[in-house]
Parts: sequence; C-alpha cells; structure tokens
Amino acid sequence: MPLQQRPTGRGANQEAVRRHNLGTLLGHVHHDGDVSRATLTTRMGLNRSTIAALVTELERLGVVAQSVPRGERSGAGRPSLHVRPGPRELYVLAVEVRVETVEVARISLGGAMTDRRIAIVPDGATPDVVVDLIAQTAAPVAASAAEEALLLGVGIGVPGIVTVDDRRIHSAPNLGWDEVAFGDLVAQRLGSALPVTIGNDANLGVLAEHTRGAARGMTDVIYLSGDVGVGGGLVTRGRSMLGTVGYAGEVGHMRVRSDGRRCRCGSYGCWETEVGAVAVAEALGTPSHDIAHLATLLEGVRNASTPLRDVGRMLGVGITNLVNIFDPQVVILGGLLSALYPAVRTEVDRECAHAILDPSARRTEVLQAGLGRDSVLFGAGELAFATVLADPVHAVAEAERVGSAAVVG
Amino acid sequence: MPLQQRPTGRGANQEAVRRHNLGTLLGHVHHDGDVSRATLTTRMGLNRSTIAALVTELERLGVVAQSVPRGERSGAGRPSLHVRPGPRELYVLAVEVRVETVEVARISLGGAMTDRRIAIVPDGATPDVVVDLIAQTAAPVAASAAEEALLLGVGIGVPGIVTVDDRRIHSAPNLGWDEVAFGDLVAQRLGSALPVTIGNDANLGVLAEHTRGAARGMTDVIYLSGDVGVGGGLVTRGRSMLGTVGYAGEVGHMRVRSDGRRCRCGSYGCWETEVGAVAVAEALGTPSHDIAHLATLLEGVRNASTPLRDVGRMLGVGITNLVNIFDPQVVILGGLLSALYPAVRTEVDRECAHAILDPSARRTEVLQAGLGRDSVLFGAGELAFATVLADPVHAVAEAERVGSAAVVG
Repeated sequence: MPLQQRPTGRGANQEAVRRHNLGTLLGHVHHDGDVSRATLTTRMGLNRSTIAALVTELERLGVVAQSVPRGERSGAGRPSLHVRPGPRELYVLAVEVRVETVEVARISLGGAMTDRRIAIVPDGATPDVVVDLIAQTAAPVAASAAEEALLLGVGIGVPGIVTVDDRRIHSAPNLGWDEVAFGDLVAQRLGSALPVTIGNDANLGVLAEHTRGAARGMTDVIYLSGDVGVGGGLVTRGRSMLGTVGYAGEVGHMRVRSDGRRCRCGSYGCWETEVGAVAVAEALGTPSHDIAHLATLLEGVRNASTPLRDVGRMLGVGITNLVNIFDPQVVILGGLLSALYPAVRTEVDRECAHAILDPSARRTEVLQAGLGRDSVLFGAGELAFATVLADPVHAVAEAERVGSAAVVG
Repeated sequence: MPLQQRPTGRGANQEAVRRHNLGTLLGHVHHDGDVSRATLTTRMGLNRSTIAALVTELERLGVVAQSVPRGERSGAGRPSLHVRPGPRELYVLAVEVRVETVEVARISLGGAMTDRRIAIVPDGATPDVVVDLIAQTAAPVAASAAEEALLLGVGIGVPGIVTVDDRRIHSAPNLGWDEVAFGDLVAQRLGSALPVTIGNDANLGVLAEHTRGAARGMTDVIYLSGDVGVGGGLVTRGRSMLGTVGYAGEVGHMRVRSDGRRCRCGSYGCWETEVGAVAVAEALGTPSHDIAHLATLLEGVRNASTPLRDVGRMLGVGITNLVNIFDPQVVILGGLLSALYPAVRTEVDRECAHAILDPSARRTEVLQAGLGRDSVLFGAGELAFATVLADPVHAVAEAERVGSAAVVG
C-alpha cells in the first residue's frame, strides 16, 4: 500500500503530523474504498478521538462521508461508523502511452475507474502528436465528471526509461523517442497548473498490483511486464523501488545465456531476448510479434513444443535470479508473460524448485497480474494520487483554484 | 543513514512524535559524532526551540553533551552549540562470526570502536562452542569499559542465511550449520535481558558502509562480499532491503553462464562459481582458497592472465546485471572482490560500459569497501544501535536496569 512516509532523518512537528495523519487516513479510505473508524484506529495506532477529529476535518472538505453500514445496526453496542469517499468526487486522469494507442481514464478516490477512452497512435508519431492525442482524449473523460467533481492531477505511464525528478523520458526505444521532456509537454498542452507526473510502465504496473491487484497487502513484490522487452517493477518494504535516477527494474537486460542472441541493447543473451515476444513468436513458429495474437496462440497450447519449453526454462532462470536477489512474497507476471506462464508452468516451476535457495523457507508465489491488462493504467492513477495524499488539504485547495476547465477545453 | 522510520500507514501521536524526534536526533549525533544544533535544525526540519528541548532531554539522561567548538568563538553572532555523545558512554557489543574466528568489539555511540578481541574457532565447531567463545571474548571487552558506561545491546553478524524476526540461522553452509536459534542461544548464554539481534554478514556490511564507509550519505547502495561465496547487501531509498524473510541479496546465485560449473547450491553457472575464491584460485594457479593469501597474490598482479581476465569479465557481467536492476549510486566491493577489482579493472569497466543501459545518465560508481575488512563488525554494531535509536529513553532505562554484570561474568 503506497502510503507516504517522511524522509529518513527528519523530525516531526505539529503541522507535519497533521498533514501526515490526514493524508494517511485518506490513503486508507482510497485504498479500501470503505473503512470503519475502528479499523482506522487500529491501523493508524491513534486513539478514537484523534481519528474522529481527522475524519471531521476531511468531512468538512466534502471528500469523505460517514455512515453506519446496513446490517450493523442490530448487534449490541454502538456500531463503528464507516468512512467512504464523497460526496464530492475527487478524481485524477490516468494516461497510458503505448506504441499503438493512448488511453485516458478517470479514476476516483477509492480507486474506481469511472470513465475511459482510447485513441489510436499513428505509426512513428512524434511526442507532440501523442501529447495532442492525450489532450483530445482527456477532454471528454474530464467533461463526463459531475460539475462539482474536483480534478486533482494527471499521472502518465510510458514504455521507456523515465527520470523521476524532471519528468523526462530518457529513452523509449519502442516509440523511437529519446530525451523528451514529456511531463512538461503534457502540462503545457493541458494549459493548466495541475500536477502532472510520469512513470515507467512496469513501475506503475507494480504500484497498481500492490495497491489493488494480486499483491495487495504485501510488502515485497516483483512485477514483470512482458512485451518485446521485459521490464520489472519493484516494491520493497512496502515502497516502490525506483533507483537513483528512476532506472531501476531493467531486469530484461540480465544476461542469462552466455551464447544467447544479440539484444537490441547491444549486449548478448539478455533475458528479454530469451523470453520476450520475439523469442515466443519464434518458438510458436509465427512471424507476428503482436502481443494479443501471441497471447491467443499461447492459450491454445496444450503440450509445449521443445522450443517453447526452452523459453519456459529461461523464464524460470530469470525468476529464480530475481527471487534469490529480492526474496519477495510474490512475482507477478504481466503482459505477454502472463499468457506464457500457463503454457510453460512445468518448466518454470521446475527451475524455481531447483535453483531458488531454500524454497521451503520462503513465501514466494508466482501469479498472473490481478488487474489484467489495466495494471499500468491503474498505476498511473495511483501515481497521481500519491501527490494528493501527501497533503490532501493543499491538493484540494489547489484543485479548487485551478479547476478542470483548461483540460475540458 | 539508517535512521528509523515509522511503518507505513500508521498515524502519529504526541508520544510517538517525541520518541521519533529523540531517536532521530540521537541518530544524527551517532552518525556524525559531533553535530551543531543549527545543522540539526536544518536536517530535522524543526524549529530551534524544539531542537533545544530535545537536546536538553538527552542531556538530562547524560548521553549527549553540548559545547561551543574551539575556533568558533571569534566570529560575529552567537556560534551554534555542538552536540556530542557523552559524558556517559553508551555502547554496544558487535560480534562477527567467521569460519575461522569470532571477533567482539565495543562500539560506542558516535561510532568509535573502543576495544576489540578475537578468538580462534576450532574446526567443525558446533553452535554451542561458538556461543561459549563469544561469551568468553565479550567479557573482557565489556569489562574494559568505564564503570558508568551503559551496555545497550549486542549485534551479531553471521555468514549465512538469517531470518530476521526470530534471530535464527536458517543455513550457514560454510559453518556446516542449519536451523540454529543462534540469537536465542547467545542471549541465554549471556544470561542477560539485553537485546540481542543477528544479521547476515553482507547485510551488515552494507549497513556499515552506508552509515560510515564508502557509501555514506547515499540512498541506493549495493555491497558485495566476496569469499568462497558471494553475497549482496542492499540499501534502497536509504534503507536496508532484507526481503520478506530476510533472504534478500543472494546475488551469488544469479546464473550468469549457461555452460558454467556446478555450484554448491546444486545449480550451474552461478555467479559465485565464476568470481568466488575457487575461481580466483584456479585462475591464479594456486590450490589455496585462503582469502588473505589470494588477496596478497592479487596485489602482485600487473598483467592479468587470460583466465583471470575471464574472471574479471564475469565480475563485470554480474555487476552490470545488478546496476540495471537496482540503479544504485555505488557498488561497493568487499572481501576478496575488493582485492580482485584492481587486477581486472579493465575487464570490469569494459563490461560495465558495454552492457549497463545508458551509463552516461546514471551516477553509478564501483568502489572498494571504505571500512576494509571491518565492514561486517561495524555493521553488527549499527544493527544493535538501531534498536536503541528507535526509543533511546526506553533503551537507557532498560540498560540501567539490566547492567553489564552478567556479560562481564
């Protein structure tokens, strides 16, 4: 659960504590969608009157409402009030940039996706063209919200290496882009002072799976996105691991086979050359690298061929490497790897049983993505909400000041 | 800097804030050895009067003292008071269990190692024998402290897989131990209610290098311990990464060569079979696997032989894998790898330049350990201090109640 924490080494004062507590409480409401005050008291380790005061402050902003849930009135004693988002809708715009499409969704506090639209990206589109498409697609999504709804920010997932601090795409090989100030371009195009944040697709995939997918409630998670490339999103001790400049998770370039084929990165035997779309297509004997097509073919596999079993074995080698390095609770397979896993499960499981150190003492599971193909889109929403939850009072005030008119156009 | 943080999702109340602030302030004093109140004000983000009150509370416990440093009296304006450990010495016992020796050191608040003793471990020693040796070695180290000095806890580093919560050694192949409740055994043998904590040697190595070695002030660090095995200690976003059950960092079992030799783990081509002591000895043409001996031979290498260059290349392959996965600021080479690096630097640097994605945009350096062969021992001390800094008032009260008589014997 990606609730914010203060940076290490800082002290705390009354104002920082209030911000922290309001943000943390709203984070629990966002995460659970509906949470009792009793649960909040236990989870946050605060007394009942402090929780009541915090809820009252958020209620005054119109962003949470309290009620006694049906069916809990009958027992002895007073039932605990439940806290839910509303009546005012707080929402963010989640954007996923893919090679062939851009998709924009409205995601509300509590995690519900309340609208989504998709647009086709022309071949070889420049960043400016994609930014225009995002703006055109975002407008009706924002316009479909209720008039009093508050747009809090925009989160964008991109298939490339992203530097976190300056919202730049350093390199997006499948889009053919290098060194694009993409976050700035989107913010300028939307003509709005809204917070715009960007992230790498695998990093957003793990954020979403961790917040509301297959890794919910876990602390140490590896999410693997599989396409032509293989990317990794990492959560350790409950927090996203991005690395020094935001490049962490390039697990696709682990070199796992000394005599392996050349990778587009210039090296040889990288994991993604062994288990990515090109290798899967070759093993299936099809020329297409289209993920949906490959996924359909993989669904039909009853007895994997020798080449496909070899792909499975290499999938297992990479997973065991990562399990030995990270000791996670779960390895979540997204994208093409999610479709590949059932076809080669025997090979993967055999490698894991054989080469993971002390597997019996670990708790690692290998699972398919819980949010299916929407992990990245949900993750882009969570990225935008992370800014809000750091200081909800400020975020709501800013959103009231800025409005969504510039986005709706 | 391993200052403690509250668990994610918790709220904060006045008492928790006071504990957090006292522990954080004492953590800065421990880390720096001497820190001005002005620096504390900036770093902790609190106002001057709050800092003054916290320092006064710690002063009352006798664990910090304030003074105007020499040379700062002359300028205009009032110089900032400096805070240092003392007058009462707070110390922990740091223990490093190795295959051939156990070493016990006294480490004081502020990080100084004020005494150390070493004992030889007989071949094939059982855990009970080693626990006895620890107790016998610890007694004079504790006895040499001043009478009013306070022993706060014991930290132990072991060459094996350790589960954090229950202080057990799950497996220490080089000691021939499996499933030993080692933390409990030491605590019982010392006959004392002192907190005893244990950790894996590479995890403690990174803790020490991060707190007061080559990675001081950095947030994302990989420490590699090299011996017969290769272990990894990881810091991400300023905090130790231990994994779900404490097994993270088994980087020695990344499979990096498909046609590689069999590893003692049962798999093939594991990184430690390619760059560990056995591979280095083979490349140097010596039968000895003794680390000190191999290190001396490596120092004499001017032009690496073809087999040694191949070891260097495989060292580079593993480092590039880890840099692509973690995006760290620094990779610190400890143990045998620290001696190996200068001999094969050309090969390592070539692999890194070739296979690290976008090296120009990163900030990764490869460095030798700053604390030399003492990283693990210092790390065991930091592990023991971590408990203290979570709640210094409680730790001091407990230490006063328990005393060091049971340890001194």
